[in-house]
Order: sequence, then C-alpha cells, then structure tokens
Amino acid sequence: MSTDTGSTAAFTDPATLDHDALEEGTAFAPRFDDKGLVTAIAQDAGSGRVLMVAHMNAEALSLTIETGVVHYWSRSRGALWKKGETSGEVQELVSLATDCDQDVLLLKVNQTGRGAACHTGRVSCFYRELDETGALRDTGEARLFDPKAVYKA
Amino acid sequence: MSTDTGSTAAFTDPATLDHDALEEGTAFAPRFDDKGLVTAIAQDAGSGRVLMVAHMNAEALSLTIETGVVHYWSRSRGALWKKGETSGEVQELVSLATDCDQDVLLLKVNQTGRGAACHTGRVSCFYRELDETGALRDTGEARLFDPKAVYKA
Repeated sequence: MSTDTGSTAAFTDPATLDHDALEEGTAFAPRFDDKGLVTAIAQDAGSGRVLMVAHMNAEALSLTIETGVVHYWSRSRGALWKKGETSGEVQELVSLATDCDQDVLLLKVNQTGRGAACHTGRVSCFYRELDETGALRDTGEARLFDPKAVYKA
Repeated sequence: MSTDTGSTAAFTDPATLDHDALEEGTAFAPRFDDKGLVTAIAQDAGSGRVLMVAHMNAEALSLTIETGVVHYWSRSRGALWKKGETSGEVQELVSLATDCDQDVLLLKVNQTGRGAACHTGRVSCFYRELDETGALRDTGEARLFDPKAVYKA
C-alpha cells in the first residue's frame, strides 16, 4: 500500500505565511526541520494515552494522510517506516492536529495488532517514571508480545 | 524560585549505558540532542489532553524536578523559560516519564492559572485539525486569555 502511491500531498511552504497565518490560518504548513523532519506524537484515540513519539518527513506524512495508515521516517534506519510493517502493530489514523507554530503533529490513532505501540512489546513507550530518588521505576506495564520473537534478525 | 537553585540534578550519561540498560534499566539518562535539548510533552494529568510540546536542556530539567514547577528551554529566545512566568499559566509537575530510548519526556501536569497552556490563550496548542480537503479546521477551542493583553511588549 505504501509503495504504489505515486503522488504525495502538497503542503504549504511555511516560509510563505506570516506569523498570524501560520498560527491561526487554515493552511497546513508543517515546519519540517533542517533534516526535513517534523515531530509526531501518537496518542491512543480511545484511552488518550500517549503511545510514542517519532518523526515524519514529507513522504511519510503524505502517505499517512492518503492511506489512513501511519507512516514515519526511521532516523535510525534512514528509511520510510510503515509502523507495524514487521510487528503487525499498525496504527490507523483517526485525526491529525498541528500545534500553534506547526512544528509538531498530534495523531490520534487506533493501535491495532496486539495493541502495543512500543518495540519492547508494551502499549506505550512511556513505561518508566522518575521516582523520588532520581531513578526510573518501571510502571509494571505488561508486554503484549515478545520483541525477540517479533523482530528476528 | 528558578534562580536561587545552585545545584542541578545529575543525570546518567547515556553513553555509559548499553542498549538494554538504556531501555530497561533504572538509570535516568536523558539523551539530549546535539543542541543539548530533549523533547518534552506536557499532558494534562486530569483530562489526558496533550497540551504542548517544548524542549528542555539539563538545567530546565533539573529545575523542573527540584522545584516541581515545569521549566523549558526557549529555542526562540535562547533562554531558560519558567512556563507561566509572564502569563501566570504555571505547570505543576505530577509525574515525569521517559520513553524507551530516553530521548523524549512525558510530563503529566496540573495546568494552573486560567488553564491555558498555549500562548494563544487556548488550553492546548493543538487547536487545529486537518480536514478532508487538506486544510486546517479550527476545533473551536475558546481563548481563556487575550494574548495581546498578557504578552505586552
């Protein structure tokens, strides 16, 4: 699905907008950074839990909008990343919001598969909280899959 | 309050951790980027709404932990930013989580003041959603303060 899409959505160039148009207007003008990426937060549309944070380039964002299936840009692999392609943990896009200065996207998603957005097999990547001693405490979230079994070399 | 704190919390250097310790261990080792910043998401502890995304350097993070009041690093001003210092919209820290690879922080906060995290006067910075035509639609969120009155030159 991600490879047979010839076209990509055209976004407004934020440099063409004044401050008011960027922050209050109707033109979608994502402010890709100097690496061509914008930060994307995936939030579970049902529970409101923040699942993960990743990045999108223009192609990943276009494919997400066109297919309704969330695509990111993997900085570690330097490649387009259809979330769930290996694990089956596909994210269906419910809504896409931008922040005031259009450098962050907030995606509400249905997390399909086993419901684990994190590559560790947990629902959310945020499974550790800072405790009063300055150490991280595992919040005890279950693993919904075994990453060693899912991500084979 | 932000200026009379002589010490800053010491964080583990992520370069001293192996992959498993970084992702599953108890050492808090935020991975500041090449500009010394880590991405921080503020989520309302009560409603679960994502309020805003900003950045923290080590000093802002230390002050946040030590004072329980959220501090960021303002990239536009190049300065430490005690959120709400001008507007009164202070964020009280409820919990701080890190993601699997420790390059993003998720702060659950009580948004005090008028309850508006966004500099536009709205509860959340995410007040516009992409519609089916590719344009942004204002979700109709009320302004809880007038930014022109709050942020005087």
